[in-house]
Amino acid sequence: MESLRIIKIGGALLDDKRKLEDFLQNFSALPSPKILVHGGGKQATQLAHELNVNVKIIEGRRFTDQDTLDIISMVYAGKLNKEIVANLHRFNCNGIGLTGADGNCISSDLRPSNPIDYGFAGDIRAVNTELLKLLLLNGLTPVLCALTHDELGQLLNTNADTIAASVAAAMSDEYLTTLYYCFDKDGVLRSVDDANSVIENIDVEKYDQLIEEGVINDGMLPKLHNAFWALKNEVCKVFIGKPEMISDKNLKYTTLTL
Amino acid sequence: MESLRIIKIGGALLDDKRKLEDFLQNFSALPSPKILVHGGGKQATQLAHELNVNVKIIEGRRFTDQDTLDIISMVYAGKLNKEIVANLHRFNCNGIGLTGADGNCISSDLRPSNPIDYGFAGDIRAVNTELLKLLLLNGLTPVLCALTHDELGQLLNTNADTIAASVAAAMSDEYLTTLYYCFDKDGVLRSVDDANSVIENIDVEKYDQLIEEGVINDGMLPKLHNAFWALKNEVCKVFIGKPEMISDKNLKYTTLTL
Repeated sequence: MESLRIIKIGGALLDDKRKLEDFLQNFSALPSPKILVHGGGKQATQLAHELNVNVKIIEGRRFTDQDTLDIISMVYAGKLNKEIVANLHRFNCNGIGLTGADGNCISSDLRPSNPIDYGFAGDIRAVNTELLKLLLLNGLTPVLCALTHDELGQLLNTNADTIAASVAAAMSDEYLTTLYYCFDKDGVLRSVDDANSVIENIDVEKYDQLIEEGVINDGMLPKLHNAFWALKNEVCKVFIGKPEMISDKNLKYTTLTL
Repeated sequence: MESLRIIKIGGALLDDKRKLEDFLQNFSALPSPKILVHGGGKQATQLAHELNVNVKIIEGRRFTDQDTLDIISMVYAGKLNKEIVANLHRFNCNGIGLTGADGNCISSDLRPSNPIDYGFAGDIRAVNTELLKLLLLNGLTPVLCALTHDELGQLLNTNADTIAASVAAAMSDEYLTTLYYCFDKDGVLRSVDDANSVIENIDVEKYDQLIEEGVINDGMLPKLHNAFWALKNEVCKVFIGKPEMISDKNLKYTTLTL
């Protein structure tokens, strides 16, 4: 089996032009096949403020009304996705930007409004592995943003971490997949205020223990939940750390295994 | 040789949700292979006003500074392109949205700033027919918006009529291509105030004659210039008329041939 990297980057990196370019250069230098997944919540919030659109966050997730959906379409699929794709070409990486609607890449179901109404939020139904394989086999690098669709004309907002995990799991039938969650810390920290307290390895047993100890905080919980879901669905390894971890062998990061 | 339709729609149609849905349903019912090209200048101008970004039009073309480029990326590649693609799936057409940067679909050169500086405007260098063929052969319908790139990280604003003509011409090496320019009139009018004065057929000789007579007005000149350029580059026929012309056999429209 061939190996396949799925790398997810978030809003903080996308806000720093210089850092993003460095990352995209490092990403381009990685061997293919590979898939990039990005969010952009921070930039969407900024545009919402500029357009006087109310931003409503419920339990860490964005409530997506029609105005918000338009904004995230513009920011995720438009500005950020195309900036990333254009810059990948600069580093000789043949990127192709996709939402879940493009080629029916990722379909989803509108999340039920009970118990909590998140508006136009989508829970992933299926990943079109045939399309992704076709693109990969032809030397293209898919760049996925955090939008899916219901196959009936409706775009839906879907968390980028979840998209990355679902794509990694779906592609594991035919590839040895590894999943990278890049964010602004060197991994899962034992003490949130101590950047040097990176926990280098976490397996299921340790994961349960860390939750019990209350070490894993609110922001990290859904990320680790996605990571272990991916591992249980045949993803080989998940790495959590700074974007530089994809190429810098000396950097600390957290490795998750079953 | 297989036939291939390239259909271009503009801002007025994109502004009318009901009309756009009707068009997309008709478009979806056409036999494949086919390619859709869209603009969105009207919607970009509207967002620019909402964001207090100055809109500067020079000789009918948009001056594209960085703020304007961000806006057209958001409107063309984000909101409009993804709305179109999502709705095509509703009608069982497997659309895939692309800018020129995606898979290096259309590369361009920054237009020289002399004699007129148009900012980040791109003149088409090459159309990636291999990528478009790959997608078409796999049952996908490319949906192209009016953005290209210089292969060095820079997105560039490129007129949608010109993109449609360039794609049609480039694909003519392997397909019998026809090009449809959809706009808000029933074709080229002999008298601009008389909707019934459609000129049904125009060949090169008649084209020269109509220009000499001053019948072809400012807005129509670049469209016909693109159309005859396409015909001289092996496109079989060009049609100009209302969006309904793609399926309604009783509608009047203008047919252009060499």
